[in-house]
Order: sequence, then structure tokens, then C-alpha cells
Amino acid sequence: MPGSSTPVRFEVLARDSRSAGRAGRLYTPHGAVDTPVFMPVGTAGTVKALTQEMLEELDAQLLLANTYHLFLRPGHEAIRELGGLHRFMGWPRALLTDSGGYQVFSMNSIRQVSEDGVTFSSHLDGSPQFLSPEKAIEVQVALGADFIMALDECLEYPASHEKARHSMELTLRWARRCQAAFASEDSSGQALFGIVQGGAYADLRRECARRLVEMDFPGYAIGGLAVGEPPALSYEMTEACVAELPEDKPRYLMGVGYPLDLIEYVRHGVDMMDCVLPTRNARNGYLFTGAGSLHIRNAVYARDSRPLDERCGCSVCRRYSRAYLRHLFNAGEISAAILATHHNLYFYLDLMRRIRTAIREGTLDELANQVEMDEAAE
Amino acid sequence: MPGSSTPVRFEVLARDSRSAGRAGRLYTPHGAVDTPVFMPVGTAGTVKALTQEMLEELDAQLLLANTYHLFLRPGHEAIRELGGLHRFMGWPRALLTDSGGYQVFSMNSIRQVSEDGVTFSSHLDGSPQFLSPEKAIEVQVALGADFIMALDECLEYPASHEKARHSMELTLRWARRCQAAFASEDSSGQALFGIVQGGAYADLRRECARRLVEMDFPGYAIGGLAVGEPPALSYEMTEACVAELPEDKPRYLMGVGYPLDLIEYVRHGVDMMDCVLPTRNARNGYLFTGAGSLHIRNAVYARDSRPLDERCGCSVCRRYSRAYLRHLFNAGEISAAILATHHNLYFYLDLMRRIRTAIREGTLDELANQVEMDEAAE
Repeated sequence: MPGSSTPVRFEVLARDSRSAGRAGRLYTPHGAVDTPVFMPVGTAGTVKALTQEMLEELDAQLLLANTYHLFLRPGHEAIRELGGLHRFMGWPRALLTDSGGYQVFSMNSIRQVSEDGVTFSSHLDGSPQFLSPEKAIEVQVALGADFIMALDECLEYPASHEKARHSMELTLRWARRCQAAFASEDSSGQALFGIVQGGAYADLRRECARRLVEMDFPGYAIGGLAVGEPPALSYEMTEACVAELPEDKPRYLMGVGYPLDLIEYVRHGVDMMDCVLPTRNARNGYLFTGAGSLHIRNAVYARDSRPLDERCGCSVCRRYSRAYLRHLFNAGEISAAILATHHNLYFYLDLMRRIRTAIREGTLDELANQVEMDEAAE
Repeated sequence: MPGSSTPVRFEVLARDSRSAGRAGRLYTPHGAVDTPVFMPVGTAGTVKALTQEMLEELDAQLLLANTYHLFLRPGHEAIRELGGLHRFMGWPRALLTDSGGYQVFSMNSIRQVSEDGVTFSSHLDGSPQFLSPEKAIEVQVALGADFIMALDECLEYPASHEKARHSMELTLRWARRCQAAFASEDSSGQALFGIVQGGAYADLRRECARRLVEMDFPGYAIGGLAVGEPPALSYEMTEACVAELPEDKPRYLMGVGYPLDLIEYVRHGVDMMDCVLPTRNARNGYLFTGAGSLHIRNAVYARDSRPLDERCGCSVCRRYSRAYLRHLFNAGEISAAILATHHNLYFYLDLMRRIRTAIREGTLDELANQVEMDEAAE
């Protein structure tokens, strides 16, 4: 059983009595990760506008990197030769890579899916590329992240039940091929997650989860959500998946979300999340605060000597004013992106700390209400 | 006498027996500055691609900011209202502002110089602007840097002796007006430097220096060099200026230079220097090392696991490989600019530390030979 030999151990340390929320710890060869965890996205082996020193200061324990981007540039062979992704990035803590599937499906209008895999054109130079379950594993083993993902087909929303089932079946067959490929690789130290698909259909989600669990993965991702469906449906699908997933394995919801989403998904039993929102919004001048988000380029901040967020303990809020940050954005300065990204990630990681504390102390509902009220008070 | 009430005190602590080089200390209301000092350039109130935290880690004691840029955006009134430039930037250490003259002359093809001042168009929106000696002081007092500069006319190279004399006389009259304006301002805590001009003519340089010294400034800048003239001529002009400048006042050579230039100007008696070279080159991928500079985008570094500079003690060289830095540049990542700038500034500031030590230990010639040999060995 591949699951039993995984080097990643997961421990549930506290449960929320009023929801499916739980706090725990993931033990990896690159350190422990407290859950629920939000992973900053380091697309090309770097979290945009931050250095690894800053990520350590922010106490990020786990970063996500995109297999698709690293596969195309600099190439997984180069990274393997340079000692793997941890060493390449100079990041001694834990890493997770996705399978590359999501980018293949979202960044490439010209692609062809077959039983074998996906043919697509590189967004960099148009060169023809092929990603199969076996290739996704080969690349991810070369990168050497602590958590790696099976290749899945990412379905558009909406899709018919028939199409969703067809896609789910393909994803299940690919998951099995990934597992076989992974077993034949020298991949000690890595944990391969299966990904639950099934579109917006609870029966398919449940079935997919059940069948993946039978295959025994050391953790399970929930994919294909936050692709345009209404939030209520995303929560319903998450619930359907979680109902079938084992209590003692980590659950990773891919690609969400806003601060309130994070709390809500945690209450639905999710342990791991990632999203480009805090970093991408930061570079565009949209900053998260305890009182909702603000657009720092707004003229109203031109002479505002207050910090971004008066209740925030981050080094940006302790040192710089809104007026200064607005000036940096208006002047097109790189430091604008650095400071904004630092603040937004602090906001997200601090929220996760508060969520973990609230679960341990039995106050998760109160935290959710507080965050919602703070945002509304903006 | 304006000079005698200056809050900036300068102390020469050691002299090089084989040159005019000296090591000393500037005491400002925002901390001590060890000289010879290289000032990182923070054009718009930020050193491009770095945060103030990083500049503290680099142990920068004195930054330069450009009056021209801050005058146009966000405006000196806004900065005054926000508590001055130190507070605006969140930089508690020493600052120096130039007069704005250099940018007016170098960035604006449409400008008109009169006895009164310079009329020019903003490079941001084309709006008509006027800079006079009085205005340059008003703006710099509002900014509140520890060191501020008199407005000078920046002459192009080459220029006739007649034109150079005419320009020098204007600069001297402007220096007097600056001094008068400064005396009438509430400018406690700031030190106003006069600027020696005179083109490429040693007699004019000497005369200009003598006449400025008669006006008694707390420090003197040497302007209008490194504008295209041959290096031998720059050194000759520096020598002519320094010969007339008092031993007990700091000498600031504006806008130089490469690492070997820094040592050479120190040997000519210069105490303060600034240049965009380390920061601008960094953003373009040109990195300084003990063995000359390298262009990190070069394909030869694609699988080079060595640090940029094996003898460098900076946090970038301790953590990241050439291959990783090359990847970040190729991927257009902001972190490329951050890490490269950090390294290049470390290289410059470390060289200045070595220069100061060598002066104290009487080994400046040896250091100069060593740096020259290291560069040639590339």
C-alpha cells in the first residue's frame, strides 16, 4: 500500500465541536506544518515580489509551486541536477507541487485530451508539449516537493452530468497510473495526493472520493472548485467530498479563496488551501485589512499617515504609512509590490493562526462572526 | 556664519600616508555615518527593489533621495505634512537630498536657464515647472534630509572655458542665494553643502572651490564630473577641487562610480559618493563580484550551482545559486531585482568597509592593487 509508506504523517490535535473543522499538524521531511494551512503560491519557484528570507519572517511553513511553469522553465531536469526544488529555491521548509493539469487546462486554448494525457502548446514559445500521468509524476519527483499531486482533468463549469462522470472516470484512471508511476520512482520523502473531481454533482464527488480512498492515498485534494460556480454549490461539493474522506488524512482544497472563504472551508473540514489572491491583489494595490480590503492607489490615501491596518502586527504596518505605499504604487516602484505582498500574506497567515487558535479554544464560530462583522464595518 | 551652527559634525579619524585618503565620521541628527561612504540612491524616496528593512540589514547609514522626483511626486508639501522624508520613508537613519538641478538638466531637453532659475517641463505630465535657488531650498527644507545641496547649473561636456566660467559664476551666485534662503528657513538639523563647478578647467575648479569656502559651508560637493570626460580629467578636476577645500569639512563627489573609481576617488580625498550603478545594473542582471562583473542572464549560468560570488558574505550569496538567479531573471520575476540589488549594494557597501579599514591600517594601496587584480583575473 503506497499510503502506508508515506513519509508525511498527519495528526489531528483539536476539533471544532460545532463544525467539521479541525486543527492538526503535518510532519514532513522539511519540517512540521500546522493545519489548517494557507500556502502562498510560488508559481515559478518564487513567491512573486518576496524573498525566501521574507517568507521565513512571515513564518510560512509550506509553499506551493507550479509544476507546469517549472516544467517549461527552467525544466525539471535542470532542477533535479541542481539538487531539487528545495535546494534550487533555497527553501528548507516544506513544498507542494500541483500536477500541472490546472495550468494546462486554464492557460491553453489549444489542447487535446486523450486517454494517454494532454497535448498542449507552451505559453512561452508555442512549442508542442505533452503531459501524461506518468510525466506529471516524473516531473514532480524530479522537483522533489514534499506533497505532489496526481494529474487530473479540470472540468469547466457548467458541464453536464454525463460529461462530469466521463471526466471523473478519466481522472480516476489517471490517478491509478500516477500511483503506479510513483511507486516505481525513487520518490522517498514525497507524498502523492489523489484529487477528487466530479464537477458540480454531489453524487459524482462522493463516488470519486470513495474510489480514491480505496486506492489509499496519504492525502486527498479537492479540485475543480472555485471555477465560476455559486459559492453555495462549492460548499455543497466540499461537504460531499469530505463526507467520504478519511478522518486521519489531510484534505487540500485547491485554489481558494477570500478570507471569509478560508474560515468557511475550514468549517467544512478542509486542512490545506492555496490561492494567488493575496499576492496577485497585492501587486495590483488591493490590500486586505481587518476592515475589508482597500485600493491603495485611491487619492483618499494621498496624505493618510496611518498604517494600512491599525490592528496589524506586520513589519509593513509597523513602519510605513498608507500615503507612502500609495506613493510607491503611483511611482511604479518595485518596493510597492514587495511591501504590499508582505502585508497581504501576513494577513492571510495571521488569519490562519487565529483560525487554528480558535479551533483549539472552541471559538471558531465567534472568529467567523468577528471577521464577517469587521469586513462589513468597512 | 551658517557653517558654524550646523548640526552635522565631521571628524577625521585616520589618514592614508600615501594619498589624500582619509577615514572619518559624520555625526547627524539621524545617526553617525562612517566615511568614506557610498550612498545608495533612493530616487523617489525608495531604493528601487529594496525595503528599508533590507537597507538596515545591509547597514546603509546614509541614503540619497532626488529632490526633483519628490518635488514632482508626491510633492514636498505632502511630505512636509506627513512629517518629513525620514518619517515618510520610514527611514530613521541619515538622508541626503540633491538640489534637483542635475535631473532638471539631464532629463529635460526643453528648459530655460535664467539668472532667476530654471524653467522646465515635468517629465511626468509636461506641466511647466520652475526651480530657483530659493525653491530648491524650500523643497529640501520641507523634505528635511540631514544633508542638502545648493542649486547648481550642470554644464555639458565639453564646454568652452568662457561658457564654463559663466556657468560657474551663476552657480556661485545661486549658492549665495541658497545660503541666504537657508538662513531664513526653519532648517535646524540640516546641513547645506555648496557645489563646486567649473567644467573641465582646473583653474575654474580651484577658483570656484576657494570662493565657496569663503562662504563657509559645512561641507562641499564636487559636481559636473562623470558626464562623459576622460577619467584622467575627472581625477585632475577632483584634485584641483580638493586642494582648495578645507581639511575639516566633508567632500562629496556626486554621481560616481565603478568599484575601482570609488577607491581612486577616496585616494583623491573624497569622503562621500553616490551612484545608481549598483542598483540599476542589478535590475538589468549585471552583478558585481570580487572577480569582476557578470551578466547573470548568460546561458553559461543555467546549471551553475555556485553562489554569485564565492567570497561574498551577503545573504543572497549564502542562499541562492547563479542558476536560480538566472532563472528568476529569465522568468521576469520581481525577486530577481530584489536579490540582485541586495547583492550589488552589499558589494559596494562592503568595499567601502574594506576601504575604511585599509585607511586605518595603512593598507589602502594594497587594497587598490588587490581589487584591480581580482577584476583583471575574471
